[in-house]
Amino acid sequence: MAESKKYRELSELGEFGLIEHLTKDIKLKNRSSVKGIGDDAAVLNYNRKRVLVSTDMLIQGIHFDLTYTPLKHLGYKAVVVNASDIYAMNGTPKQITLSVAISNHFSVESMEEFYAGVRLACEVYGIDLVGGDTTSSLSGMCISVTVIGEADKDDIVYRNGAKANELICVSGDLGAAYMGLQLLEREKMVFQESNEADPDFAGYEYILERQLKPEARKDIVALLKEKGIKPTSMIDISDGLSSEIMHICKQSNIGCNIYEEKLPIDYQTAKMAEELNMNVTVCAISGGEDYELLFTAPLSDYDLISSLHGIKVIGHTCSVAEGCNLITRDGNTFELKAQGWKSF
Amino acid sequence: MAESKKYRELSELGEFGLIEHLTKDIKLKNRSSVKGIGDDAAVLNYNRKRVLVSTDMLIQGIHFDLTYTPLKHLGYKAVVVNASDIYAMNGTPKQITLSVAISNHFSVESMEEFYAGVRLACEVYGIDLVGGDTTSSLSGMCISVTVIGEADKDDIVYRNGAKANELICVSGDLGAAYMGLQLLEREKMVFQESNEADPDFAGYEYILERQLKPEARKDIVALLKEKGIKPTSMIDISDGLSSEIMHICKQSNIGCNIYEEKLPIDYQTAKMAEELNMNVTVCAISGGEDYELLFTAPLSDYDLISSLHGIKVIGHTCSVAEGCNLITRDGNTFELKAQGWKSF
Repeated sequence: MAESKKYRELSELGEFGLIEHLTKDIKLKNRSSVKGIGDDAAVLNYNRKRVLVSTDMLIQGIHFDLTYTPLKHLGYKAVVVNASDIYAMNGTPKQITLSVAISNHFSVESMEEFYAGVRLACEVYGIDLVGGDTTSSLSGMCISVTVIGEADKDDIVYRNGAKANELICVSGDLGAAYMGLQLLEREKMVFQESNEADPDFAGYEYILERQLKPEARKDIVALLKEKGIKPTSMIDISDGLSSEIMHICKQSNIGCNIYEEKLPIDYQTAKMAEELNMNVTVCAISGGEDYELLFTAPLSDYDLISSLHGIKVIGHTCSVAEGCNLITRDGNTFELKAQGWKSF
Repeated sequence: MAESKKYRELSELGEFGLIEHLTKDIKLKNRSSVKGIGDDAAVLNYNRKRVLVSTDMLIQGIHFDLTYTPLKHLGYKAVVVNASDIYAMNGTPKQITLSVAISNHFSVESMEEFYAGVRLACEVYGIDLVGGDTTSSLSGMCISVTVIGEADKDDIVYRNGAKANELICVSGDLGAAYMGLQLLEREKMVFQESNEADPDFAGYEYILERQLKPEARKDIVALLKEKGIKPTSMIDISDGLSSEIMHICKQSNIGCNIYEEKLPIDYQTAKMAEELNMNVTVCAISGGEDYELLFTAPLSDYDLISSLHGIKVIGHTCSVAEGCNLITRDGNTFELKAQGWKSF
């Protein structure tokens, strides 16, 4: 007979007990982390480095659906999407604080799962968890992460440094996380209608992973540094390429031409789009959560960048008067719209 | 005829529009704030100072009740409770990031109210709002603030620095915010039962203000510095004196004796407790949200501290073997329990 697994109520531990339980064997790795969890504030030492700070909130029912999101993946993703913002400044994430509000119907084991994901991401990205808050919620789960990172003053890349006639480059491929979401939503509907849970995800592992367990492009930042390429502007793609390139254009006071034929799209993304009767280009430029890096660089870097694995030149910047455009395969020009992910 | 006031839907502005609308005329005040809202991350410059980071989450229905909490007060309080954590390290808060999740039934005007409170607190405490996230929520409002501050390395006061035979001191008075909450809850119940909203708060203005618009003790930190007093340990009282002194004792590996007769209690707090038939001492040691500073200092500072307005010596530390005790007016000794505010 199988032993029934026991789940512990959160109230058994209480707020301080839960925090202690979840964080007790955390060891600080970074020299800049002087003091972590356990006091009124964490203490950091950044010396002559600049300090980078970014924050992101994830809300149940808006940013994630617990019916198909494993808690460990969710914890991992919560750290990654924040780390991504620091890489987008050409910096290195070093610490996070993590606040979580959860229904007290959650078990201690669920929170352990969630924290296992948080800690795995911290390990992969060399980040210390230095503080946070854990509280109950009357309704859904709410996650807020603040990430702190560092960069040398002269290394920081802002959104406003692009000029006309520069290369527009993107790492990895686009639209996969969005198509992964469509697949999960479809299977959820099938399950709700038939009550039979037998989803067949074979052949779609990549797009599912892109949605459920995205990675931040630490490797791309390292590669650019190694090759001596300093982007003139950079942003990470959380709301879709279209929305992000327009942030760069607006802040740099320039325009852009993006070429449809140059957009990097994975085979699974294209296949899923076809299956769902969606336009794959629209998915690639408007689907969010890619967490790829979008950056501009001088024309003179063209040969070097073209030779790099995992980075693609997808267009060029132009004068602000020319606007922000997508040039399709058949040579038509469409004005880009920021159709990115809309919260309200 | 009165002109009907128009309220704008959040969807009219969208996420980026709302953020821009609410933050467009924010000017950075602190030298350490190099770049604020508008990029992937804020950029800070802390040079040789230590960086202090703390975070707090406020959840509707758990930490606040919108039936009687004005949004402007809520915004103010969200900043203050975070600033308080930095003062409790003997530091100075310099920046915050603010993430808010709200139902899209909220109007733009409501968010303006909330931000007005945030900005007022930032002004009062010299803090720059440098980043954040605004998103929708399917249910209640969720607020997450991360505060970043600074201190010279040698000025930082931790929770673990207390020794036996030191003074235990507290600023201001205790239990008022908790009694203010009881009053508001009572009036809410009266209103729900009778549907007549005619609360009489006369004579209870102080305890209401302590609940709805608390302040962080910036002045006490400045006063201690001016007088050359460096606490050996310090914490801010958010969960009640009893819970907080036990944090200090646990981390410093000491015990404590607190004297009931020394507890600073305002007249309105005592009057409200009497009216509600509650034990005022229990309210003072277990009621949370005072945001006063609790600290330990060497015995040799006794005369100096006793002469200071707004600080009271309420007991002394002892060996860990003696435990954590409350000595009542009639000379009885009770073991302190951390009955503080329980989230789960």
